[in-house]
Amino acid sequence: MAVLAPDLLYRDDAFYSGLAVEFNESTGRIARVAHRLELDAHDAVPLPGRALMPGFVNAHSHAFQRLIRGRTQWRPADTAVANFWSWREAMYSAALNLSPEDVYDVSRWCFIEMLRAGITTVGEFHYLHNAPDGRPYTDRAELARRVIGAAQDAGIRICLLNTCYAAGGIGQPLSHEQRRFDTGDVDTYVTMTEGLAADVVGQARVSVGIAPHSVRAVPREWIGMLHAFAATRDLPFHMHVSEQLAEVDACVGRFGLRPVELLDDEGVLDERFTGVHATHINDREVVMLAIGGGTVCACPTTERDLGDGFLRGADLLRAGAGIALGTDSQTMLDMFEEARLVEYNERLRRMQRVLLTRGAGDVLEVAPTLLRMATSAGARSLRVPAGALEEGALADFIGIDLDHPALAGWTAATLPAMLAFSAAPDVVSDVWVGGRNVVANGLHGRQEEGMRAFNAVAGRASGPGTHSAF
Amino acid sequence: MAVLAPDLLYRDDAFYSGLAVEFNESTGRIARVAHRLELDAHDAVPLPGRALMPGFVNAHSHAFQRLIRGRTQWRPADTAVANFWSWREAMYSAALNLSPEDVYDVSRWCFIEMLRAGITTVGEFHYLHNAPDGRPYTDRAELARRVIGAAQDAGIRICLLNTCYAAGGIGQPLSHEQRRFDTGDVDTYVTMTEGLAADVVGQARVSVGIAPHSVRAVPREWIGMLHAFAATRDLPFHMHVSEQLAEVDACVGRFGLRPVELLDDEGVLDERFTGVHATHINDREVVMLAIGGGTVCACPTTERDLGDGFLRGADLLRAGAGIALGTDSQTMLDMFEEARLVEYNERLRRMQRVLLTRGAGDVLEVAPTLLRMATSAGARSLRVPAGALEEGALADFIGIDLDHPALAGWTAATLPAMLAFSAAPDVVSDVWVGGRNVVANGLHGRQEEGMRAFNAVAGRASGPGTHSAF
Repeated sequence: MAVLAPDLLYRDDAFYSGLAVEFNESTGRIARVAHRLELDAHDAVPLPGRALMPGFVNAHSHAFQRLIRGRTQWRPADTAVANFWSWREAMYSAALNLSPEDVYDVSRWCFIEMLRAGITTVGEFHYLHNAPDGRPYTDRAELARRVIGAAQDAGIRICLLNTCYAAGGIGQPLSHEQRRFDTGDVDTYVTMTEGLAADVVGQARVSVGIAPHSVRAVPREWIGMLHAFAATRDLPFHMHVSEQLAEVDACVGRFGLRPVELLDDEGVLDERFTGVHATHINDREVVMLAIGGGTVCACPTTERDLGDGFLRGADLLRAGAGIALGTDSQTMLDMFEEARLVEYNERLRRMQRVLLTRGAGDVLEVAPTLLRMATSAGARSLRVPAGALEEGALADFIGIDLDHPALAGWTAATLPAMLAFSAAPDVVSDVWVGGRNVVANGLHGRQEEGMRAFNAVAGRASGPGTHSAF
Repeated sequence: MAVLAPDLLYRDDAFYSGLAVEFNESTGRIARVAHRLELDAHDAVPLPGRALMPGFVNAHSHAFQRLIRGRTQWRPADTAVANFWSWREAMYSAALNLSPEDVYDVSRWCFIEMLRAGITTVGEFHYLHNAPDGRPYTDRAELARRVIGAAQDAGIRICLLNTCYAAGGIGQPLSHEQRRFDTGDVDTYVTMTEGLAADVVGQARVSVGIAPHSVRAVPREWIGMLHAFAATRDLPFHMHVSEQLAEVDACVGRFGLRPVELLDDEGVLDERFTGVHATHINDREVVMLAIGGGTVCACPTTERDLGDGFLRGADLLRAGAGIALGTDSQTMLDMFEEARLVEYNERLRRMQRVLLTRGAGDVLEVAPTLLRMATSAGARSLRVPAGALEEGALADFIGIDLDHPALAGWTAATLPAMLAFSAAPDVVSDVWVGGRNVVANGLHGRQEEGMRAFNAVAGRASGPGTHSAF
């Protein structure tokens, strides 16, 4: 057993002084959160100048896209319009060039950067499966295993959302550029995923989920089957949904149903369902998502970068849907920014303040809502018992540097709002995953090595001075 | 003469290796930017792992509002709506409680935090003039001088935009809560400002500007007079304009003109004019602002926090107006975020990418536009010869840590986009103002002392555990 005694500890939507957390280093679970005088004082490690809170859960990530950071913020002068679809071409090019070793190096670095930003669990929506020529590796899960290995070596908890990908659009074959994503027929996908799931059973910090890519990329008939598979194994079930209007239009054109309506029709909108983005949904779809008890995973820094449109955050919360957060394309790794954008995008459109409130009594606050999105809502989406400092939960937590300049003037009462609205990732000074300290004073043990390997891949992807790598 | 030789140097919208900057430490000006072999190698200080770029110019700041960071993100449960106007009540309460020493301590800390974020010049829109009881101090510019002193002690360059404030709304007297803002009649304001301007003549790093608060707070008849005063003394002329629809409605109701139309009618929309916010302007007003050659100062992190609405950034740039950036309410101090929000808010509304482009030839990029907003556009707005690394300009520049995790994978070509779209303030490791190194390796020399004094003021403003200080 180990005991950490920070200056402040976040529990039940507020920071308290005097509390300490006791956790079991071999099980990686929290044993107790109690006043430090109630816990064994001999073992207690004081954390002066630190506030302890649950680690962030990043519910939607494509780690390899870290490679194209900074490389898609331009367009050819002879192109009238850049949008999600032109960005996707650049992303495909990046994906096509990666060896298994590259996938490992890029993913490991991305996970190290996530840990430094306080992310203790990542939901990796993994769709890069085949060799560059499109043929499956001898082990179809070769790249999935590389990504899991990268997470293990970085020390982050991972839920590998193994993506099923079979079509290039509704009723369309895969394009040549999508050849690495092909998971074959549904049985092949299930067999591959079962193998992965069997291998990670009992492994600390690794789990698996089912992820039909989208209504674009998976035949409608498979969706219910895959959901049944997820239910049988009690796995999370994630899909991209309604990120772009073109998807909605294609779905209506083919099936006479909007994407969320179709998923409702297939009976998959239950509590294990997470719809990623859900940008273009109507009132009826908001209610459908909420009634099922599912989660919407917003990725606001990516959605603004790709010009996807605005999340209906206030409507979803009012209807009772959960909102989790993902860093998706890795343009930024800042869960504070992801969280506040859900509130801020509402403020800008409604021209009001203080909208996504929680609380009872005299005061309605926004910060607890936002911090839950970044922690417990993501944990629920990935079916990982984390996201709160409480008995039995995973010992995944982060230390906030109370002497950070951005937080100057904090009180226990204002600190949640300071974090949610004004903090950058560098306020996170220390990170524990399953009770293991993987970031200390802002430094990750494998940071230099990880960056060097990543830079080598990035250097091959694009020589200095060129704009046109992708 | 001193010479700095970084790994990369930003000039003419791109990073170059091999360049060094030579500057005169007594005049605080840049003498030359040239290849390091052309400059005297004996004097050159190498800056390994650093990219040098112009310091940021923060064209609109209310330093004392740093005190309410984190304290306005809630509302009473019995209030139906929170908005700009309810936020303003909280801000007024904070303003009313500050002694001259408090104003100094809060401002100095805010300026230190700005410097750490790479801001080398601040345009301080200063409207807190009188004693708490509303009576002018013996020296009417007492608090202005405290703010200037705070800037000097922090080491930031300041343009004190001395605010003229005389009405509580169009045709309305000042409210009791606005008593500290009252600058009396126009002659009193001019006398006070002339005194300030005379005192700072010849002082390094200090200048003065004319700032009628808004069409709400200054009688229409004064606006042209104050602009003539600014022209005679060759000073910048700043006003808040059209931040809220209520201001537009009141202006139309009283004068039959929208705020920018009124300012056009008064003949003040020239190249020395900066309109702060300009959120709610119509097509005609966009053109009026552009034709005059003036600047709009956007404050996107504040505008999203206050629920002001969206800047018409693309329209303004297309029409030819300059866009500068301000941190305004100090919710965040992150000029990268201010800059990218101008692009991102357009992407979200238009559902396209890569909109605010610059460049010729085959490639149109966004980052150069955004970095100009954060540097040269602000310098032009404040009439300070900074914002670019070129001969004769002020030696105000910042060092970017090229080993920062957020920038891993950079090339000279992608670095501007990485900064504009993916960086947080902590990528700034070193800061020079007028050739003086005031931040080194992320540390400001008076950081601890400054934070301690600020915390003392913040502690009096609100005891720990309370929500209700303001």
